[in-house]
Amino acid sequence: MMKIPLSLHADRLFPADKTTRDIARRLYQEIRHLPIISPHGHTDPRWFADNLAFENPVSLLLQPDHYVLRMLYSLGLSMEQLGLGQAADRELDPEVIWQTFGDHYHGFRGTPSRLWLDHVFADVFGIDVVLNSDTAADYYQHMQGKLQSAAFLPRNLFERFNIEVLATTESPLDDLRHHQRIVNSGWTGKVITAFRPDPVLDPEYEGFHGNLVTLAALTGEDTQSFSGYLAALRQRRDYFKRHGATSTDHGHPSARTADLSDRDKAALFDNILSGGFSPADAELFRAQMLTEMAGMSLEDGLVMQIHPGVYRNHNPQLLQRFGRDKGADIPLPTEYVRALKPLLDKYGNDPALTLILFTLDETSYSRELAPLAGHYPALKLGPPWWFHDSPEGMRRYREQTTETAGFYNTVGFNDDTRAFLSIPARHDVARRADSAFLARLVAEHRLLENEAVELAHDLAYGLAKKAYKL
Amino acid sequence: MMKIPLSLHADRLFPADKTTRDIARRLYQEIRHLPIISPHGHTDPRWFADNLAFENPVSLLLQPDHYVLRMLYSLGLSMEQLGLGQAADRELDPEVIWQTFGDHYHGFRGTPSRLWLDHVFADVFGIDVVLNSDTAADYYQHMQGKLQSAAFLPRNLFERFNIEVLATTESPLDDLRHHQRIVNSGWTGKVITAFRPDPVLDPEYEGFHGNLVTLAALTGEDTQSFSGYLAALRQRRDYFKRHGATSTDHGHPSARTADLSDRDKAALFDNILSGGFSPADAELFRAQMLTEMAGMSLEDGLVMQIHPGVYRNHNPQLLQRFGRDKGADIPLPTEYVRALKPLLDKYGNDPALTLILFTLDETSYSRELAPLAGHYPALKLGPPWWFHDSPEGMRRYREQTTETAGFYNTVGFNDDTRAFLSIPARHDVARRADSAFLARLVAEHRLLENEAVELAHDLAYGLAKKAYKL
Amino acid sequence: MMKIPLSLHADRLFPADKTTRDIARRLYQEIRHLPIISPHGHTDPRWFADNLAFENPVSLLLQPDHYVLRMLYSLGLSMEQLGLGQAADRELDPEVIWQTFGDHYHGFRGTPSRLWLDHVFADVFGIDVVLNSDTAADYYQHMQGKLQSAAFLPRNLFERFNIEVLATTESPLDDLRHHQRIVNSGWTGKVITAFRPDPVLDPEYEGFHGNLVTLAALTGEDTQSFSGYLAALRQRRDYFKRHGATSTDHGHPSARTADLSDRDKAALFDNILSGGFSPADAELFRAQMLTEMAGMSLEDGLVMQIHPGVYRNHNPQLLQRFGRDKGADIPLPTEYVRALKPLLDKYGNDPALTLILFTLDETSYSRELAPLAGHYPALKLGPPWWFHDSPEGMRRYREQTTETAGFYNTVGFNDDTRAFLSIPARHDVARRADSAFLARLVAEHRLLENEAVELAHDLAYGLAKKAYKL
Repeated sequence: MMKIPLSLHADRLFPADKTTRDIARRLYQEIRHLPIISPHGHTDPRWFADNLAFENPVSLLLQPDHYVLRMLYSLGLSMEQLGLGQAADRELDPEVIWQTFGDHYHGFRGTPSRLWLDHVFADVFGIDVVLNSDTAADYYQHMQGKLQSAAFLPRNLFERFNIEVLATTESPLDDLRHHQRIVNSGWTGKVITAFRPDPVLDPEYEGFHGNLVTLAALTGEDTQSFSGYLAALRQRRDYFKRHGATSTDHGHPSARTADLSDRDKAALFDNILSGGFSPADAELFRAQMLTEMAGMSLEDGLVMQIHPGVYRNHNPQLLQRFGRDKGADIPLPTEYVRALKPLLDKYGNDPALTLILFTLDETSYSRELAPLAGHYPALKLGPPWWFHDSPEGMRRYREQTTETAGFYNTVGFNDDTRAFLSIPARHDVARRADSAFLARLVAEHRLLENEAVELAHDLAYGLAKKAYKL
Repeated sequence: MMKIPLSLHADRLFPADKTTRDIARRLYQEIRHLPIISPHGHTDPRWFADNLAFENPVSLLLQPDHYVLRMLYSLGLSMEQLGLGQAADRELDPEVIWQTFGDHYHGFRGTPSRLWLDHVFADVFGIDVVLNSDTAADYYQHMQGKLQSAAFLPRNLFERFNIEVLATTESPLDDLRHHQRIVNSGWTGKVITAFRPDPVLDPEYEGFHGNLVTLAALTGEDTQSFSGYLAALRQRRDYFKRHGATSTDHGHPSARTADLSDRDKAALFDNILSGGFSPADAELFRAQMLTEMAGMSLEDGLVMQIHPGVYRNHNPQLLQRFGRDKGADIPLPTEYVRALKPLLDKYGNDPALTLILFTLDETSYSRELAPLAGHYPALKLGPPWWFHDSPEGMRRYREQTTETAGFYNTVGFNDDTRAFLSIPARHDVARRADSAFLARLVAEHRLLENEAVELAHDLAYGLAKKAYKL
Repeated sequence: MMKIPLSLHADRLFPADKTTRDIARRLYQEIRHLPIISPHGHTDPRWFADNLAFENPVSLLLQPDHYVLRMLYSLGLSMEQLGLGQAADRELDPEVIWQTFGDHYHGFRGTPSRLWLDHVFADVFGIDVVLNSDTAADYYQHMQGKLQSAAFLPRNLFERFNIEVLATTESPLDDLRHHQRIVNSGWTGKVITAFRPDPVLDPEYEGFHGNLVTLAALTGEDTQSFSGYLAALRQRRDYFKRHGATSTDHGHPSARTADLSDRDKAALFDNILSGGFSPADAELFRAQMLTEMAGMSLEDGLVMQIHPGVYRNHNPQLLQRFGRDKGADIPLPTEYVRALKPLLDKYGNDPALTLILFTLDETSYSRELAPLAGHYPALKLGPPWWFHDSPEGMRRYREQTTETAGFYNTVGFNDDTRAFLSIPARHDVARRADSAFLARLVAEHRLLENEAVELAHDLAYGLAKKAYKL
């Protein structure tokens, strides 16, 4: 063990074959310093409003990261050992938790977490040894020191990371005060919101009924009538848009959409309000609301994102004791062809709509998503998501979507993260992975190198900027 | 932009690694000039009967190609801009349409359409610059000139392409007059038909009832009784066989088969004729008819092909305005293990039957199709189909089927195209892709090079000829 | 044809790229001579108890191997030509059968059977020419001679193969006499059993009711009451454990589990005993029994394996004439996320349970299995199974599971075979495939070489030993 040198190799993630690697290097050189467009993510706008120092490495890098929690938990560590769910008087010292992390860091070999964390350690913190049992204590001290320095204040990191725009995600019930404070502060970093209406669109969302009451209070609309409810949503979309939002985001269990008659919509809404609805009613309501949202997107121009297909909180014991987002969300087989048809029948032919689809079911790439996006003007494919935001995941995504959907029906990279310090690492992985894929096409004479340069630029920067209207 | 050189690199589609590439080159040299066996496709026999010049590049290369239409449409172009669906007085000049195509040709980067089209441009038309906005006008003039020359008449191209046999696909209601004219003309090009009975087997096919009336008129059989209906089908199969057909083809929504009792078959047929059938009845009838067709194949020796698993005409607005086959067909998850069981229970053990399976659901390659074909004597795997007729699609096909089904339960390549000029390009892609795959096995010492040479020859020529009895 | 040299290339299965191959070679050198841990397989313990010479090459290498039978059958050979299902007076001479095998050995090109068999021929038998029509007769004579020699007695081969431990699989109704004879003999080869209770857990298993009667006789428990039935199972688990078992194995059609109330369990058991149960009842009973087995595993420490998702005996004609395991088992789509939830809700958070999951549905690797194993402490992923126990299958497994589950939620290699002579070949393929995968990660700077050495050792030896408590 002891001190093993940590360095980020200049050729990491490039194919070993010399011809291909040389091309990948050249492509990457063209794009590595491009500004970061982060059109979809989960950082906390308060960080940039307050601009206070991050507390410590554990609360910054470990506890909020469900990738890290899930792996450590799977290897037999308890959540308590990671500092979660303990009463205040039994809380572990963060240094002890970090040591535990170091003791098990080898468990991350071969995972993207390892790539991202090493990038953060080496590039953001300037550390030059691998994290393990022997180095964990030094790691903690070194990072804790850095975090207290001015250079590590959120806004300074934002600028150092060369972020051109960063989107966060908020509920329609959020007053966006932190975004307003950022604007009011005069700081020029562009931190915008995105409209995530699940809490008021999904009848099975915790607190749904209360959320509609709050929505009424915020908007002055009668959210107990379907027309008032839609008017309230329109008003909040407008509010978000005025605070910089260019997109909405929808995290439904499935991709199902519906296009009911006005009478059926109103009856369904009444059923939902009555509380006596079945799971199938809830699914149908969410389905109808996706179509309503697409209609509103055509009115207000907000880009629409759908992130379906996850069994959230699969582990009830964990949910009860430690809450959501602790790594117990599991992907499901996800169907798109029939699910999206009602929405597509109504709006799919309109190039003025941008509907960005994500999936955790890779089988849909070549079978459903690429053929759909390679036909409907309204559809675009989001980048490989969550478990597939990884070198192998990105390779499969390009290999399985490009031949049918091309590159120009995709929208560049999303980091989709709450792990702020890893944003440059994640974009760097994507830029390298795309350079590697393009390099193979060039090496196999399926693409000219000048075309690959243009594409590399588009995949790293241009497509995200255009698709998200940034 | 301007003039970027277009050339077909001698090593295109071969892996960059030098060892592997050298092997791939050697394998490809052995097979590149083999005659083309095209046992399944959709060219128009009238071309070879009439032997008239093709009209223009747009009506030849763009408008009939659903791969091209779907991509341009997905990028926001209207069908009208591509010259479809316009009243005669508003029709666009083909040169204008071609310019639009040139303006958006970069959208095809990374797709097989780009590979096929570049091959057609460079190899068939002798063009040496890449198609783009600046070169589109010259392209049109050059190609239009060529198309008027004797060398570009259909029969001359057929011979230049070194096609040994080309199968077209016809409805049982077709009188095969063009095939007869070809034979009568004394031209020696071998253009045969294939029996595609969907219009008279699928109760949901447009005009089904009228089709049975026509079938009765053609055969003198009573197609209102199940036995007369079967007799009529037998008669048409025989007619097709006498016009060169060696195969049938079935494009059902699923792979479902059935094996009902005689009484149930007759009752189902009556139900279908009554018009009061449900979608499930229609599905069951198609299922039963696949088993009937397999039985007839054992009688007359016609090879049977099943192409299941497509949601046809997913976009109703497009269908209504512009008709079928405009790029709005989307693959569906497709199940084979239970679906094929009734047919296999009855005929699957008979090596005298050849049943060739295709899929658009790549998940079935390793899970269902290779295990089925690697067991049942009657089953063989068709080549990667449609969206998967591409370099990556072919690689996945070989990687996912070979270890369980081997090579000798596959049937070589099908171009499956109506784009006549791209036939050499498509076979060339397949030959290169197979050479590349075999080269990897040789380079990794999983196959001897002399074995790979034999296999390359079989995959390019021998297996198709044998499986389709050509 | 004639005599083509057969040699096992030192670099077989390594990537051709020189950089990567050099790394793979170094990794493989570190592990190639490690002892074999075979924690799951189907060899016959009688071989090692009797230690008699194997009869002949056909009955040893061909007839019991369903991989070989299925391929030859698919290519049109009858089972009778392979010596199966014939009355004694019509039995073919094994030499004739071997000649038939030689005549069709080219059909195995590109399959793992070819890799394993060539390894057996070259390395175990010392043969230096490829099997084909011209060499088959010499092959037979040479092998038959070897099999009569002392060096080829089962125990001597076991030792020559450097097997540290070999697990067989037995029914709870087995008295384990052969295992006892091995122990009594004083031979030090470690041949242990594994507890495979399908015959007494699956109401649809042939002879289920009689099996319960036998179970009662063996244990003195009343297997007509649910509590007595459970007590009998506990007793047999204990008996197996005392004969070396460290694991159980469950071959259910699906991965479904259940967690019924005590009252519902008893009612279901009564229904099953009554014989009037539906397929859904049988499925529910199997589901409940998996959960019961997991509970018992927490009591007695036996590691639990689930091998779901096969349509057994898909070909009824073959089953009727030639029996089970002749190559007519076909994988099915297999769902894990909802299926395993009842069991996981109850026991999934307990690191004291080890539940090893296998699949024949590769789509579940990245979508379901890696996310589940990368979260639940009780879950581990078994190696690629059956059709996927192959170079491409192993590559896909690592590529699709590692980024989410890491390496330490996997359990090393299982050969899962009854083909005793191929055990070294199978482990060698796995060691080479893992070396190749790790080498790519090192070459792409995603892993340090010293980490890869440690991992190679764990994947070849350490993880199996630890996971199976050997």
